[in-house]
Amino acid sequence: MPALRAYRALLDRAIEEDVGTGDATSLAIFSADHRSAARIEARQPLVACGLPLAAEVFDAIDPGLSVGIETAEGEAVEPGRVLLRVDGATRSLLTAERTALNFLGRLCGIASFTRRFVDAVAGTRARIVDTRKTLPGWRVLDKYAVATGGGTNHRFGLYDAVLIKDNHVAAAGGVGAAVKAAREGSASHLSIQVEVESLEDARIAADAGADLLLLDNRTPPELQEIVEALGGRIPLEASGGIDLTNVAAVAATGVDRISIGALTHSAPAADVALEIELGAVPGR
Amino acid sequence: MPALRAYRALLDRAIEEDVGTGDATSLAIFSADHRSAARIEARQPLVACGLPLAAEVFDAIDPGLSVGIETAEGEAVEPGRVLLRVDGATRSLLTAERTALNFLGRLCGIASFTRRFVDAVAGTRARIVDTRKTLPGWRVLDKYAVATGGGTNHRFGLYDAVLIKDNHVAAAGGVGAAVKAAREGSASHLSIQVEVESLEDARIAADAGADLLLLDNRTPPELQEIVEALGGRIPLEASGGIDLTNVAAVAATGVDRISIGALTHSAPAADVALEIELGAVPGR
Amino acid sequence: MPALRAYRALLDRAIEEDVGTGDATSLAIFSADHRSAARIEARQPLVACGLPLAAEVFDAIDPGLSVGIETAEGEAVEPGRVLLRVDGATRSLLTAERTALNFLGRLCGIASFTRRFVDAVAGTRARIVDTRKTLPGWRVLDKYAVATGGGTNHRFGLYDAVLIKDNHVAAAGGVGAAVKAAREGSASHLSIQVEVESLEDARIAADAGADLLLLDNRTPPELQEIVEALGGRIPLEASGGIDLTNVAAVAATGVDRISIGALTHSAPAADVALEIELGAVPGR
Amino acid sequence: MPALRAYRALLDRAIEEDVGTGDATSLAIFSADHRSAARIEARQPLVACGLPLAAEVFDAIDPGLSVGIETAEGEAVEPGRVLLRVDGATRSLLTAERTALNFLGRLCGIASFTRRFVDAVAGTRARIVDTRKTLPGWRVLDKYAVATGGGTNHRFGLYDAVLIKDNHVAAAGGVGAAVKAAREGSASHLSIQVEVESLEDARIAADAGADLLLLDNRTPPELQEIVEALGGRIPLEASGGIDLTNVAAVAATGVDRISIGALTHSAPAADVALEIELGAVPGR
Amino acid sequence: MPALRAYRALLDRAIEEDVGTGDATSLAIFSADHRSAARIEARQPLVACGLPLAAEVFDAIDPGLSVGIETAEGEAVEPGRVLLRVDGATRSLLTAERTALNFLGRLCGIASFTRRFVDAVAGTRARIVDTRKTLPGWRVLDKYAVATGGGTNHRFGLYDAVLIKDNHVAAAGGVGAAVKAAREGSASHLSIQVEVESLEDARIAADAGADLLLLDNRTPPELQEIVEALGGRIPLEASGGIDLTNVAAVAATGVDRISIGALTHSAPAADVALEIELGAVPGR
Amino acid sequence: MPALRAYRALLDRAIEEDVGTGDATSLAIFSADHRSAARIEARQPLVACGLPLAAEVFDAIDPGLSVGIETAEGEAVEPGRVLLRVDGATRSLLTAERTALNFLGRLCGIASFTRRFVDAVAGTRARIVDTRKTLPGWRVLDKYAVATGGGTNHRFGLYDAVLIKDNHVAAAGGVGAAVKAAREGSASHLSIQVEVESLEDARIAADAGADLLLLDNRTPPELQEIVEALGGRIPLEASGGIDLTNVAAVAATGVDRISIGALTHSAPAADVALEIELGAVPGR
Repeated sequence: MPALRAYRALLDRAIEEDVGTGDATSLAIFSADHRSAARIEARQPLVACGLPLAAEVFDAIDPGLSVGIETAEGEAVEPGRVLLRVDGATRSLLTAERTALNFLGRLCGIASFTRRFVDAVAGTRARIVDTRKTLPGWRVLDKYAVATGGGTNHRFGLYDAVLIKDNHVAAAGGVGAAVKAAREGSASHLSIQVEVESLEDARIAADAGADLLLLDNRTPPELQEIVEALGGRIPLEASGGIDLTNVAAVAATGVDRISIGALTHSAPAADVALEIELGAVPGR
Repeated sequence: MPALRAYRALLDRAIEEDVGTGDATSLAIFSADHRSAARIEARQPLVACGLPLAAEVFDAIDPGLSVGIETAEGEAVEPGRVLLRVDGATRSLLTAERTALNFLGRLCGIASFTRRFVDAVAGTRARIVDTRKTLPGWRVLDKYAVATGGGTNHRFGLYDAVLIKDNHVAAAGGVGAAVKAAREGSASHLSIQVEVESLEDARIAADAGADLLLLDNRTPPELQEIVEALGGRIPLEASGGIDLTNVAAVAATGVDRISIGALTHSAPAADVALEIELGAVPGR
Repeated sequence: MPALRAYRALLDRAIEEDVGTGDATSLAIFSADHRSAARIEARQPLVACGLPLAAEVFDAIDPGLSVGIETAEGEAVEPGRVLLRVDGATRSLLTAERTALNFLGRLCGIASFTRRFVDAVAGTRARIVDTRKTLPGWRVLDKYAVATGGGTNHRFGLYDAVLIKDNHVAAAGGVGAAVKAAREGSASHLSIQVEVESLEDARIAADAGADLLLLDNRTPPELQEIVEALGGRIPLEASGGIDLTNVAAVAATGVDRISIGALTHSAPAADVALEIELGAVPGR
Repeated sequence: MPALRAYRALLDRAIEEDVGTGDATSLAIFSADHRSAARIEARQPLVACGLPLAAEVFDAIDPGLSVGIETAEGEAVEPGRVLLRVDGATRSLLTAERTALNFLGRLCGIASFTRRFVDAVAGTRARIVDTRKTLPGWRVLDKYAVATGGGTNHRFGLYDAVLIKDNHVAAAGGVGAAVKAAREGSASHLSIQVEVESLEDARIAADAGADLLLLDNRTPPELQEIVEALGGRIPLEASGGIDLTNVAAVAATGVDRISIGALTHSAPAADVALEIELGAVPGR
Repeated sequence: MPALRAYRALLDRAIEEDVGTGDATSLAIFSADHRSAARIEARQPLVACGLPLAAEVFDAIDPGLSVGIETAEGEAVEPGRVLLRVDGATRSLLTAERTALNFLGRLCGIASFTRRFVDAVAGTRARIVDTRKTLPGWRVLDKYAVATGGGTNHRFGLYDAVLIKDNHVAAAGGVGAAVKAAREGSASHLSIQVEVESLEDARIAADAGADLLLLDNRTPPELQEIVEALGGRIPLEASGGIDLTNVAAVAATGVDRISIGALTHSAPAADVALEIELGAVPGR
Repeated sequence: MPALRAYRALLDRAIEEDVGTGDATSLAIFSADHRSAARIEARQPLVACGLPLAAEVFDAIDPGLSVGIETAEGEAVEPGRVLLRVDGATRSLLTAERTALNFLGRLCGIASFTRRFVDAVAGTRARIVDTRKTLPGWRVLDKYAVATGGGTNHRFGLYDAVLIKDNHVAAAGGVGAAVKAAREGSASHLSIQVEVESLEDARIAADAGADLLLLDNRTPPELQEIVEALGGRIPLEASGGIDLTNVAAVAATGVDRISIGALTHSAPAADVALEIELGAVPGR
């Protein structure tokens, strides 16, 4: 888990965006000493992710709130499940509500969306892998949510793995030359991944010492041909146009990894809500 | 348009997340003086949004790049349309690619998703309105994208409008009392919006001086009944469970506004891509 | 109230500016275990504002300090009134003193200055309203202080209301055309305010659907003429050259709002001071 | 002069506060290609300060604007004097206006207020000195404005000079002991200043090796007595309750320095305004 | 290369630390229009690193300066070699000098220190590898400097590789169990490195599927024994107590990698200096 | 001592750099509820510095950890001495380890290196003084470490003292003219230090009213000549090429101050380590 308390700057910014000079509505309706008990609940089946960050939101709004996390990171829960309980000043609860939910909506959303892909390929050798298509400012949080959902993190950025794509191949004068250039240069210690367009190129790349082959926009039969030729010799990763309707078919070809940009760029927000019992602060 | 150059901190962070110690692949393949021409293209019908920010990404990576924006903010374009052209050092183009696309994917994604709703209600009086369900750190950018897509921005935060919901009504002892409390308190100069559960409450709220009524999770017939009773007297906003399959039916009831959280929390990323012509730097 | 704990970045910066490598004087004079009791007192009649932020300063300097807020935000107090008590290590108390007072000086200063205007117009219908003439970096805090003093916040920025001024009128070709352009464009859902130079323009603006008229640099008789002609039909806001010597006369004309830039750009700091009882830590 | 371009974070924050999703009014009225010429003018006699920072604001809003600074930092100007000229897109000019003026209002305000004190003591040996009563986040800018106005900067923080006050004296067991503790401890290389309550204490402090004596809340006759006794032997600084009505009398006593918190905590904003000639972009 | 322009926040902070209210000395001596030509020179044999960042410092201080980089990143130069030329206002040159040199001192320092180790093991199979012992805030820049010096970057943080140390082994119940736990858990896709204390444990780790063995604080004979037993089968990395006096002996054992914390935590600063020719601005 | 808790931004950044998505190794090996006791120990003789900051690292990673500082800032300790004890979740201890040690390595490193110089000149009148050759982003922390080691801080930046160097002398037309320009200009209240190349210039500078003379790159005999001529009349500071082998000889000449850039730009990191007793949480 990331050290979520170290994301204070993002959290403070999120609070400032939403709260500004204050929650005008709650200030008008509730007295300063009105207290309530609240809980954040799942409204859909989801994978819990980011609860410690949501807890920090409440603490930042009002350190007098009492917060308890009720669900473990990565746990799959049913609708109605309580994720977090918090009680204290009603004004503070309502002021923090949307910011906490916005964090959870994205993080549980990515984790849950990832889990659906993971479940869809259960029983195959395929892992579900993310990409660099994360939201600016959210790279680590997005990738944490993918991992929490059971996915596997691809490279973190341009710096920690080589990924040779079509332009690199064209410039180098072929797949073999591109792999060779990477193997002999300053990045030689990194994992070298190569996007290949044909079985022939796949063989050349594997022979040249690539660590992983990326097969982009291939049909399942095309994938299967390459798996049969090279499977077990070098890991194979499928990508491009893969969604929940076809991921099982892709996995059935025997590829090792399936990378999906939508995990982080298009996961729908998870439906989570704060329920409040006005005036009810148990055990106080 | 926001002053996008003022978002340098977010932009720098995004670059740092992705680039780290450098683009290991491009450094291995391309020489420092290899130059190319590139263009960012739409791969789907979309509404252009955020191009000045994408241009800033290229400039931040390498001020020697030459960048030209080819499409106006808010313009609806077809697949294949060039949004932005940039040429210069190939290493720099490839280093900036993903960060620029990640910004555009979200901003064009929200603008395009919004436009689909706007188009779906064309010919009715209904505006498409956003919510506070934006991404932490992205409130202004997300709302800008909604407006670029033709949507209308709801309140910016808890501070600039009153929105009385069920808990406020319960605590105040009824809709009328809640509106009265808001009208007489420190927020009296703000727009006062009230979520109502019945036609009777709607009447009470309107009589009490509310500026707008929020009708959450109502069926079209229920909405229509309230429109017939109160339409024209006070603006009515429908929300809850509205998507592209039913938004036209909701609009047909005659409501003034339809607010949709998914515009910002679940818009799929727009499909944009950088195409590069290696070695081709025109007119130099 | 803003979520003052979310202003950690500003607070940390303020501390760093003042403390640097440490309080050289107190380190030379007091031993690390010397403890005292201190209180922050009003030295003039003032309106309390920002005490939770001052408390955070002490906590950030030394979490071992014990801090208690003694006065509610917005409360008007007499000289000698204790606003906040804090006790613990003397070195820490003295290290935090100036930063805490600098925050309070500005926030209590604005709130108190605002209150004087509010009191001066008591019994009239006029509200005292702020402007965008806030200090860079302090927009939210400055506006919070105005509201704490009993004032009303004007728009938060260029984005959340339309304010048509002379240049806009000139470019649009008249007041009516300017209002029409705003009403039909992308900002049509915002409040539309118009600065008018004559009764005739005021009528045109009201007829065109403006939500509020701004009457800049008008004499009380001029204001009164417009109030008599349009009062009750559209809210009227006076501005320009209004200070404590003439605000009552302006309010007596019957205008609805009086906006005053000096509330935030020229409020004198409130006189607050930290008194310390060396060695006296009660009840420990 | 500070490296004003290094204050990008404050500048970006100021822009974001004011501009948000954009200048709704100007976007509704002006087309994107409408261009104008603008100038920032003094509306009162003032001392120019912060013009390079105001120029940065325009550049950050729109790098296509052409900006020229017309007045040197520290120059005293009459009403009507042009401080800065800028021309380009009218929307950009109006979007940047308030942020640029807010910076100038404070910085010219402090410089001008300082200059009034400096002028009031002309012909005496007294320098006008600032304090640590600056605005959180603005220590360097505030002190720069004081220096620009002709004032002298006191210590920058708690770290770069020793200032022994009443509590330190009490704890140390007397002025002499306090000075001795400072002279022998880790801060011995710093300038040691001592607040003294009597002529006797002043003598003791000077004998003990203090570098400067602070005479707080003394009447001119009291000051004069100490000047006569110690003047020339050790610099003497008067403070407390000094304003434009009495500063000349204080200076006439022969003190070396007069420190005034109001320079930075209560300087009224300078009156500066942006004048615009619609459609007039000279020489293009 | 990192996108050095994206490090504006660190650069602005460095400038603010050093410049504050301005370069008091140069302001007193040089007129605003005095111009000079300057060059940054190596004062010792060094490896150039960070010149684009130094160039940014001059640009941030004064965009009117003309800066030219004269030496490629990673190039080894002799004393007297010009790294960067800059000319323009003398005040600006002197104001920027120290900040630019402080960046270069560290970055060239690390690159040069690394190069000495790289040169010392030339002809062996050993790479020189860094650690996570970087300076807080400088992880990417420090690792970039190592790579520029010819070294190889180890993992970037705790997140992108598994490194099993003694405590992990003890808790897991042995080397084999620890590797197995890593291989089967959520980090199974990461490189798994194991610190081993004996040849037997080395064999167990290799058999269990470790990707790399870390041999900490071993003598060359001990290293050699393990190289002879396992070399070629699994990469071997030596660490602990290795400096320029013994690195060649360690490399001679045949290990694949030698990791050295001192590269980033104790590299001496490179000696670089700015030479200035007063009044000499060539070709203007 | 600086207000170390106010350095949250640097601390959060350091944590984010190292932890990213989490400590993959510890997450694989230790269960969430495994607890241990740990201590940070000196591995070499060192001067303790920065322990409160290290404690903050553990708190930021996991507020459930219990941290106790065992050694006072500035205390010289022997190898084996415990500096800090912390116990709680084993995962948290290991996640925080490297970041905490990286802070301590630098701060104890600078303090310890400084102390060696201080000890080497014991019995002379010479103080050991730092320079502005600090690490970007670390000015205050670096100078705090020097002071903790017993050194004396030189000016904090370009703003708080005048230091006339060769270029200033050349431009002013001689040492005397340069001092005069500084004495009469805006910086006249600052300490004026002058770098002199000869005894004659030293006399001129002293006569002109300089506060301190800087003698750069002088041999001990040259220094002694100047000390004999001017010692006692004006403080003398030696600098340039001074290390532990020659500092005593320099001090023996009778100079008042010896400034050494290496204190902050080249201090080797102190050797500190975290020792952990798995499963051992005493007294719980």
